[in-house]
Amino acid sequence: MNAKIRTHSPVWAHGTGKAKEVRERIVAFCAGRDVTSLAPCDEALIHQDISTNEAALLALAKAGVLSKKESRSLARALIDLRGQFESGKFSLDPELEDVHINVEQALRSTVGDAAGRLHSGRSRNDQVACDLRLWHRDRILSHIEETLELLTLWLEQAEVEKGTVLPGFTHHQRAFVTTWGHNLVAYVQAWLRDVERGWGVFERTNRSPIGAAAGFGTSWPLDREWMADLLGFDSVLENSADAVSSRIEVETDIASWMSIWMNHCSLVAQDLVLFSMEEFKWVRLAVEVTTGSSIMPQKRNPDFAEVIKGKASLVHGSLASLLSMAKGQPSGYHRDSQYSKPLGQDLWREVEGVPEVYRLVFGSLKLDRKRMKEATKGGFLEAAEWADSIARESGLPFRDVYTCIGQAVDHCRKTGALTRSAVNDALKKNGFEHRVSAATAKKLASPESLIAGRSTLGSPNPKRVQEQIESFRATVVGWKKKVDRTTKRMERKDRERQREIENLL
Amino acid sequence: MNAKIRTHSPVWAHGTGKAKEVRERIVAFCAGRDVTSLAPCDEALIHQDISTNEAALLALAKAGVLSKKESRSLARALIDLRGQFESGKFSLDPELEDVHINVEQALRSTVGDAAGRLHSGRSRNDQVACDLRLWHRDRILSHIEETLELLTLWLEQAEVEKGTVLPGFTHHQRAFVTTWGHNLVAYVQAWLRDVERGWGVFERTNRSPIGAAAGFGTSWPLDREWMADLLGFDSVLENSADAVSSRIEVETDIASWMSIWMNHCSLVAQDLVLFSMEEFKWVRLAVEVTTGSSIMPQKRNPDFAEVIKGKASLVHGSLASLLSMAKGQPSGYHRDSQYSKPLGQDLWREVEGVPEVYRLVFGSLKLDRKRMKEATKGGFLEAAEWADSIARESGLPFRDVYTCIGQAVDHCRKTGALTRSAVNDALKKNGFEHRVSAATAKKLASPESLIAGRSTLGSPNPKRVQEQIESFRATVVGWKKKVDRTTKRMERKDRERQREIENLL
Amino acid sequence: MNAKIRTHSPVWAHGTGKAKEVRERIVAFCAGRDVTSLAPCDEALIHQDISTNEAALLALAKAGVLSKKESRSLARALIDLRGQFESGKFSLDPELEDVHINVEQALRSTVGDAAGRLHSGRSRNDQVACDLRLWHRDRILSHIEETLELLTLWLEQAEVEKGTVLPGFTHHQRAFVTTWGHNLVAYVQAWLRDVERGWGVFERTNRSPIGAAAGFGTSWPLDREWMADLLGFDSVLENSADAVSSRIEVETDIASWMSIWMNHCSLVAQDLVLFSMEEFKWVRLAVEVTTGSSIMPQKRNPDFAEVIKGKASLVHGSLASLLSMAKGQPSGYHRDSQYSKPLGQDLWREVEGVPEVYRLVFGSLKLDRKRMKEATKGGFLEAAEWADSIARESGLPFRDVYTCIGQAVDHCRKTGALTRSAVNDALKKNGFEHRVSAATAKKLASPESLIAGRSTLGSPNPKRVQEQIESFRATVVGWKKKVDRTTKRMERKDRERQREIENLL
Amino acid sequence: MNAKIRTHSPVWAHGTGKAKEVRERIVAFCAGRDVTSLAPCDEALIHQDISTNEAALLALAKAGVLSKKESRSLARALIDLRGQFESGKFSLDPELEDVHINVEQALRSTVGDAAGRLHSGRSRNDQVACDLRLWHRDRILSHIEETLELLTLWLEQAEVEKGTVLPGFTHHQRAFVTTWGHNLVAYVQAWLRDVERGWGVFERTNRSPIGAAAGFGTSWPLDREWMADLLGFDSVLENSADAVSSRIEVETDIASWMSIWMNHCSLVAQDLVLFSMEEFKWVRLAVEVTTGSSIMPQKRNPDFAEVIKGKASLVHGSLASLLSMAKGQPSGYHRDSQYSKPLGQDLWREVEGVPEVYRLVFGSLKLDRKRMKEATKGGFLEAAEWADSIARESGLPFRDVYTCIGQAVDHCRKTGALTRSAVNDALKKNGFEHRVSAATAKKLASPESLIAGRSTLGSPNPKRVQEQIESFRATVVGWKKKVDRTTKRMERKDRERQREIENLL
Repeated sequence: MNAKIRTHSPVWAHGTGKAKEVRERIVAFCAGRDVTSLAPCDEALIHQDISTNEAALLALAKAGVLSKKESRSLARALIDLRGQFESGKFSLDPELEDVHINVEQALRSTVGDAAGRLHSGRSRNDQVACDLRLWHRDRILSHIEETLELLTLWLEQAEVEKGTVLPGFTHHQRAFVTTWGHNLVAYVQAWLRDVERGWGVFERTNRSPIGAAAGFGTSWPLDREWMADLLGFDSVLENSADAVSSRIEVETDIASWMSIWMNHCSLVAQDLVLFSMEEFKWVRLAVEVTTGSSIMPQKRNPDFAEVIKGKASLVHGSLASLLSMAKGQPSGYHRDSQYSKPLGQDLWREVEGVPEVYRLVFGSLKLDRKRMKEATKGGFLEAAEWADSIARESGLPFRDVYTCIGQAVDHCRKTGALTRSAVNDALKKNGFEHRVSAATAKKLASPESLIAGRSTLGSPNPKRVQEQIESFRATVVGWKKKVDRTTKRMERKDRERQREIENLL
Repeated sequence: MNAKIRTHSPVWAHGTGKAKEVRERIVAFCAGRDVTSLAPCDEALIHQDISTNEAALLALAKAGVLSKKESRSLARALIDLRGQFESGKFSLDPELEDVHINVEQALRSTVGDAAGRLHSGRSRNDQVACDLRLWHRDRILSHIEETLELLTLWLEQAEVEKGTVLPGFTHHQRAFVTTWGHNLVAYVQAWLRDVERGWGVFERTNRSPIGAAAGFGTSWPLDREWMADLLGFDSVLENSADAVSSRIEVETDIASWMSIWMNHCSLVAQDLVLFSMEEFKWVRLAVEVTTGSSIMPQKRNPDFAEVIKGKASLVHGSLASLLSMAKGQPSGYHRDSQYSKPLGQDLWREVEGVPEVYRLVFGSLKLDRKRMKEATKGGFLEAAEWADSIARESGLPFRDVYTCIGQAVDHCRKTGALTRSAVNDALKKNGFEHRVSAATAKKLASPESLIAGRSTLGSPNPKRVQEQIESFRATVVGWKKKVDRTTKRMERKDRERQREIENLL
Repeated sequence: MNAKIRTHSPVWAHGTGKAKEVRERIVAFCAGRDVTSLAPCDEALIHQDISTNEAALLALAKAGVLSKKESRSLARALIDLRGQFESGKFSLDPELEDVHINVEQALRSTVGDAAGRLHSGRSRNDQVACDLRLWHRDRILSHIEETLELLTLWLEQAEVEKGTVLPGFTHHQRAFVTTWGHNLVAYVQAWLRDVERGWGVFERTNRSPIGAAAGFGTSWPLDREWMADLLGFDSVLENSADAVSSRIEVETDIASWMSIWMNHCSLVAQDLVLFSMEEFKWVRLAVEVTTGSSIMPQKRNPDFAEVIKGKASLVHGSLASLLSMAKGQPSGYHRDSQYSKPLGQDLWREVEGVPEVYRLVFGSLKLDRKRMKEATKGGFLEAAEWADSIARESGLPFRDVYTCIGQAVDHCRKTGALTRSAVNDALKKNGFEHRVSAATAKKLASPESLIAGRSTLGSPNPKRVQEQIESFRATVVGWKKKVDRTTKRMERKDRERQREIENLL
Repeated sequence: MNAKIRTHSPVWAHGTGKAKEVRERIVAFCAGRDVTSLAPCDEALIHQDISTNEAALLALAKAGVLSKKESRSLARALIDLRGQFESGKFSLDPELEDVHINVEQALRSTVGDAAGRLHSGRSRNDQVACDLRLWHRDRILSHIEETLELLTLWLEQAEVEKGTVLPGFTHHQRAFVTTWGHNLVAYVQAWLRDVERGWGVFERTNRSPIGAAAGFGTSWPLDREWMADLLGFDSVLENSADAVSSRIEVETDIASWMSIWMNHCSLVAQDLVLFSMEEFKWVRLAVEVTTGSSIMPQKRNPDFAEVIKGKASLVHGSLASLLSMAKGQPSGYHRDSQYSKPLGQDLWREVEGVPEVYRLVFGSLKLDRKRMKEATKGGFLEAAEWADSIARESGLPFRDVYTCIGQAVDHCRKTGALTRSAVNDALKKNGFEHRVSAATAKKLASPESLIAGRSTLGSPNPKRVQEQIESFRATVVGWKKKVDRTTKRMERKDRERQREIENLL
């Protein structure tokens, strides 16, 4: 027996196969930074900085700023550098300040002074703005993609569970009968707005600042539109001053979007936290997605859900930092905003695993449908529907019926469910002639028939839920195509640009 | 002499005509809540609540839930109520909790129990969600409209000032020559993204929650799609649970949008604060937009600009509150989120005057073009362009030229401007053969020729600024048409709905 | 039957006597701003502004700046004005900008130009700073007082409930047996830190800025130390620049303090929300502190608790606004910070009722001790204590015992409680010789004996809880005396100052 | 010439000696995370975790839970471990989750099962809470110490510069003559409040949670008071539930304190940013504390000041995260709050260098006293003092004099300074008989005499500034002694505890 393993994960390490994989994924997700170090921010930008240099090389070569010979040697050097980077042989030297100087220096050591000439008309202001936009746009696209996978799963499960009744809550108090399928579709509807929002953020991010130099343009003849196209941007961020000073806006836009999204994530988390409590036991989380305790052998803690709520708070704070940083600045670049880089990267690191984790959690979740259904029988979930039904049948004003039902509820508190006789007594006592028939009472007695009576568009009635599923499924498919098309276009542009570089040889 | 006026506004009350109007507008904008009370939140929602009741009446009448007679008397009562409201005769009774109960009670006092029957299938949860969406969508549209007016003004001024040179800054230090026109276009480019963002918010806001009831639909046969159309919504927020719990998201979405926008506003404010300081005097604010001091007779304080920066912080805090409120909630409505109503309304009250105030400020601003131009001659704004020019002419690597220019700058610190001889000395001292010709030096000597040399798309070169102006002008016009079309559609829907109500008579 | 009452509060209006009073208090607490307007901020400062004027009059009279005659007439005018204000006859004229000009104008209308001379050496900068410090210091003291009342109640209840067992949670999962009394004492311990923090805030608030003028002192011979003393300040905020620019720090300090306190409040709220859910029913909120629903007659919603959580988010956002507002300002007063006034006042309005509401809620709460105790028997709350006990008796390492107990728990999941035989089987299976005796098993079988076994200082063992109660009670009494003494000193200073004014007659 | 150095720091690397050291310190301060990785959080806690284990060993040995033999071998193992750690030979294994398991495992590999027995009665909940409090209390003390060094420097400089006149601002507009010495003393007054606040935070932090176990105490006979004393805590955090759940409050308390402090830091930063602009040139930052530009050879950017403002925003966001995280949690530990660890550590990493950087910056700052003084002659800084003086001499009401001076200011706008004749004309025009004598005018003509006329306590009058300096110097010395005494006590406790461990051998 390995003392090490025995020590630190006494209970929850005994999974195998798929469960083991899942557990490892969950542990990594929850781990945080206790024993993990964070890489330098610019390590994430090496690919992007090489790409930006490629675009610059092509533009300067085309404009004749670089001679054929210089272009050729720079092309060779960039191809080599990319090769080194991709095979893990290029890493950043901390003494060289940032990725831009590191890349420049790597080129210089190969081609000498021509490396300096590659920086004609360029400033670190537009370089970093460009690299970051390239980096973030990829994160955005893949995050939307991950999310759409989760929505697909929820829609599948909603179809299965559209008849699974449980209490719906308002104010943490039981309110109406609803279904698990309807809950899932509610998540989907909210998250689809997040996808919409995210797409807007993508469109605002995928604009090219390159060529703005320090914010005031340059006298070097750079073709900004062509450079933008070479990098797969949708358009040029024309005004050079704004192109540079809007750098922090990219992260702020993302953090705003994520702040709302993370609140949607936190709602799902809180539903799972509540419904898996001993006092509910409506859902049972797979053991491999839960965490044990170092001293309580019985524990199956929903750490992943708590961590997601914590992450929501983290993102809110990052947004607050970003907004505060930019407030009150005059025109021009200011170093205050340098923190947008780690804030933006930390943000993605914290949130990007959430959709996958939810796929693992929902994919392995067990519902206790029996307990859920039993729970619909306490708490007078049917009270409002009795009132509606009587109002409809009798023509009495709802408010009067409401009063009678209220009294009947008070009378039945001990047993926990409305009886026909209690209701009829209350109607009588208040001087109304209408009485509830046995047939009507029967229809109000089962959670399923209560749900079936809910007729409006978008309600938990299984037929209505099915409509929602179909409509949202179509939307999800539409988004998937759009994201896929865009991703492919970016990849094609990458290949094309690299081919152009090869053509310089 | 009126002692009262003399007392409280000794210096800054002597305006007349247009200036007086402007001053009053500015004073009101800056006033805050010192001696102004705030109306109850629901007072703003009376029109919207009557509209929602109209839609409900039409739907319940069509479904046969209400008899012809009931429909007729309710139609009459609603027409009367709207009339009273529009003529200022309807106000809220604080003992009746909220606008919904106030309206219900007003109807009840006219038509009796039918007023209660008008609430079949409705909950305050979907009513308030609906009223608020109607209210906010109008604010959004008119805010965008106001903004577009300002952008139009800035583009006009940019055209006039595209040749007005002044120093451009980075790190609060003079960096490059730029133009006032380019600054203005930078504002426009940023604000156009805000308009884009705002339109996304509008689209997400203009969806109908009505018919979602308490979040679980209803057994009353309400046609949600028709109700949505009657109220001018673009679509139905289908899933009933999300329709209700997304209520706070409307305000959060707006606050996110506004938070970034207000930062753009704060940038303009800070530019004006700086450039109007005694130490700059590049812009001169009209006396009527400034504020005096109670003890310093010489003061012309840019209070409006400071207030705008303060408002930015206010909005950031509101966003933080809204995000924190929703975090960690499980499914269903929770009263925590009731504060979204005052937060959302306060937010609009604080920000909605900003575009108009900027129109007043920029409309009356005086530029001191001479001082601006003089300022371009200190601080070595031309240094980087000398370096670029020499690198281009000589073929030397930029980094080496940079070093020479750096030394020449050090040498010329006393006089404050680069001389050809200092530069040539530095080139010589570093062992380079290239020398700057008199012709080249001349081109680098005037701020206008420096600017004219900036050739890239989006740069401050007046030709490039003109391109930007034309492109943005077309975008502004496009948005104006879109907003106008939408506003008109809303108004038409309002009239149509009211006509349908009249048809019930 | 009153149609009005029937309409808007169908269920929850039937209380009488004490319950009715409580309900009205709760309804007011939850009401928010829907149908309530907010008074102008400066209305709250009239008393303070008159006091500040009194101090100024005394200082100027003593310095001989005002003649005896002027002093006499100003003294008479101030006495009259205070009289009018106290009898409700003085209100603010919105055209006179703020409370300072209103008061000045009121004096001017009585005494003419001498009112102007009363402003020698004074600026609105130090006047408002002074008024606000006076206002906030009173709020702080009375808030601490209210809080101490609540802590007294909790300590009383803790003494009664120190033996009332229920499950303690970590990660929302049952962890260990604890007691209701221990929970209450945990609240007290946290809130006592809040009192400490609040006292620090009081000390920093109760310093006098008066005489700092616009931030640069004055040439008028004002005795700042005497003025501070006349107003009951502890000391003078000496440096005049900081005295003025620290104005926003008062509110920020309060908001920081309150932000943590409100989180403590939100913890209590969430405990009540959870424990009163249908799925728990461990506590039963009195009907008069809950709220009904407009369509669900069965509802007893814990709105007050949700509102408290919402208020926590409000306060957090206010703090964010205040911090962001002050960030990046250079020395000197800036109007950005004017929003500190409404933010500070709104903050108090939102939080000041919380301690009283908790007194009402806890004063009327019913515990279901039976259900609480039953709940200690599921969820293997005893598991860790079995492990501890076996480790202690056997000398085996805790980690090994933990493993055995973990296996026994898995074996007993169906029945929900550990059995001696399952544990002994696990010990055997893992090759350990130790066995749990019947006597030991018995000691681990009851929640009361588990609790009694917890021996450490501060644990839920009733004897230990009693120690905590006694220690905290002494602390509470100590604070009460301190607050009381301070409040009385302030009141005495008020009287003394007014007497000095009378002496001028 | 080294190509590497030439490349990345073309201008600003040529310092030597002290200047070079300063530059390296500044570069490191500004560097951020671009090319720097962050260590795992728990690496910072190794010393603390060993200390906590030492206390536990002593307590368990004393209670007889551990045999003499076990105690001896554990003592030896802990001494070895500390030795390894101090000589850099102990580092964390990421597979072992956290520092606690790493330390436990290191002991286990030496002493076997006894390592497990050392964890009797301990949970990671109280261990981490204890380690963090130990870590933070040291940060707090050394941060206060660093700060007091800076305040000492400012007071020295204030003494030198108490007669150095410059314009004082309100609303970014020149207001009154003030002095650089007065500015510095204003900083000191604000920062002394921060020291006060920090001391309160220290007192609340230096309380011992150890022995609280998972929040519910333990049945192992641990002497919590002794353990607290062994670790240098001031007292025991008695209630075990609060001892554990208040963990996040430590960081929140620190972040609140730091948020206000950082705003004070940002004020100093903004003063330096403004006053070092080309348009002011009142202060000249030493070249070694500024940063150059990659393309503009003339730049001397105040990056350190911008970075400090950015850090302020970072800290504000961290506070928002911490507050939001804790909001709405019920009793008990929840994993949401795990992020308090990196937030708390990042916060210190960001802020702890600020006092030192300000010492370097102020230590090398050059004032341009001539330009400062010249600036006092524009902008009518003397206007209010003319008004005061006339009001005093003439007995006219201030408001009337204010009006006259306002008119005179308008008349003199061209020349930029008030003339006696313009003032006398205005007095005459308004019908007043008083005239300003030549003698009076002379007294108002020099900035020094204006300042000398400012008589109130705390004003910029050099005599008054001297009083402030003396009073604050005494306060600083008092704090230094207190901090020093406390630091020494901690160190003594560390030695004593380690000696007790040696006694076990």
